[in-house]
Amino acid sequence: MNQQQLFEQIQKKRSFLCVGLDTDIQKIPKHLLYTSDPIFSFNKEIIDATAEFSVAYKPNLAFYESLGSQGWVSLEKTVMYVKSKHPEIFIIADAKRGDIGNTSNLYARAFFDRLDFDALTVVPYMGEDSVKPFMTYLDKWVILLALTSNKGAFDFQFLEDKTSGDKLYESVLKTSQNWGTNENMMYVIGATKAEKLKEIREIVPNHFLLVPGVGAQGGSLQEVAQNGMNSKCGLLVNSSRGIIYASFDVDFAEKAKAAAQKVQQEMELLLKEAQLI
Amino acid sequence: MNQQQLFEQIQKKRSFLCVGLDTDIQKIPKHLLYTSDPIFSFNKEIIDATAEFSVAYKPNLAFYESLGSQGWVSLEKTVMYVKSKHPEIFIIADAKRGDIGNTSNLYARAFFDRLDFDALTVVPYMGEDSVKPFMTYLDKWVILLALTSNKGAFDFQFLEDKTSGDKLYESVLKTSQNWGTNENMMYVIGATKAEKLKEIREIVPNHFLLVPGVGAQGGSLQEVAQNGMNSKCGLLVNSSRGIIYASFDVDFAEKAKAAAQKVQQEMELLLKEAQLI
Repeated sequence: MNQQQLFEQIQKKRSFLCVGLDTDIQKIPKHLLYTSDPIFSFNKEIIDATAEFSVAYKPNLAFYESLGSQGWVSLEKTVMYVKSKHPEIFIIADAKRGDIGNTSNLYARAFFDRLDFDALTVVPYMGEDSVKPFMTYLDKWVILLALTSNKGAFDFQFLEDKTSGDKLYESVLKTSQNWGTNENMMYVIGATKAEKLKEIREIVPNHFLLVPGVGAQGGSLQEVAQNGMNSKCGLLVNSSRGIIYASFDVDFAEKAKAAAQKVQQEMELLLKEAQLI
Repeated sequence: MNQQQLFEQIQKKRSFLCVGLDTDIQKIPKHLLYTSDPIFSFNKEIIDATAEFSVAYKPNLAFYESLGSQGWVSLEKTVMYVKSKHPEIFIIADAKRGDIGNTSNLYARAFFDRLDFDALTVVPYMGEDSVKPFMTYLDKWVILLALTSNKGAFDFQFLEDKTSGDKLYESVLKTSQNWGTNENMMYVIGATKAEKLKEIREIVPNHFLLVPGVGAQGGSLQEVAQNGMNSKCGLLVNSSRGIIYASFDVDFAEKAKAAAQKVQQEMELLLKEAQLI
């Protein structure tokens, strides 16, 4: 999917919601544990309930890997389900990968060839040759970590370079401009750092940003939109726990739908304010 | 496995070799493709051939994930095989993981509970709360990326902090001292940056270092040992391609054995020079 197609989906659904499929076997409703694949059963119902309000899904790999090969099977089924039933939806592997070039090639094979994700989150620590192998696939995206939503972001991401005066996350934004374009690269910017979004938009005016941290982590959707929106929206705002765990009971899908719709309605207002719909 | 036990293995085997199980379905000998699990068949033969010369194995997750759930099955079998047949050997998941605390907990479950790895490589970019969940397991280890072996290491790892004057990789080494101890944390230092090892040893005199990049990537074992060894050896030097792909034919295990033995013999000399055996 290219940038224009993603923007068209946002306009059509009046939403820039990404639903995080952080599906934890210890949290899903008990009645699903009797199905042959509880994780997939949960995801399938969540996807069908929320697809009309969402432009993206984002399974976080940790939740699947914690179940070993069986978790990986559930992941494969989830991606295939989205691709076949809701092909208009952008699907992101939140895997935070990155290794020497030789090895990143294999991760690219895993997520783009075998699994057909549209995008993969990648860590910039190892630099250019760890990131570029992911950018050789047409209409696939790298989503590079820049400024994350967690407390630990302050440990290294704000270190200020002596020569340029840039903070580490700013160096990541600037340096990586030379690696890809706004047609194959996005950035992770945590909603809890929404006050930085105006400055960030000066560095990357045209890139899409994946913004986690609204909801359970305390970020404000309104602040994210006001500081971060561009002429093609340029935002995918993720909510995981607030939607998929809106209920822990048999009504979980129905409650997830209501929670997604509520976010979509807020987003619709913000898109209208910005005259994008 | 604790630090003393690891050192005892090094003394016993007269080796600090870690064999990287970067097992690529496109590179293994053709006759193995007819077995029910070619990746596991290859690993099993490599492990049996090299175990007497190695103190550690390091499967790189990318190679397994590139085969989807089936690759994950091969990985599970490989770890179980090492644990049952060669329980004295330290086994490292080279996965380069790291996420917000909530999610890193799940990765810890994946690699330490479900898979029973002894150690996991972790990326420091997201800071303390992304790393600490891995350190709550007794006798399990975090191996934090500090200075990597690849060219891209120069993109960010050498950025110099305005306040402290430390380069990013030095900040990682110093800051992370507050997160763990030399009983639950090691660092990745690329052999291609061996000239930095003396300075690095001033910051982390007692920690074990995992050193990739000898062999195909061009690092020198002798330089690594001279600059990086401490009173408990303190080094696990990895070789992947140079050993496991010493031959692409039916004699691959035999040739891998010879290649591992050659490295072990060099290591034995270096351990003797340092009066550690």
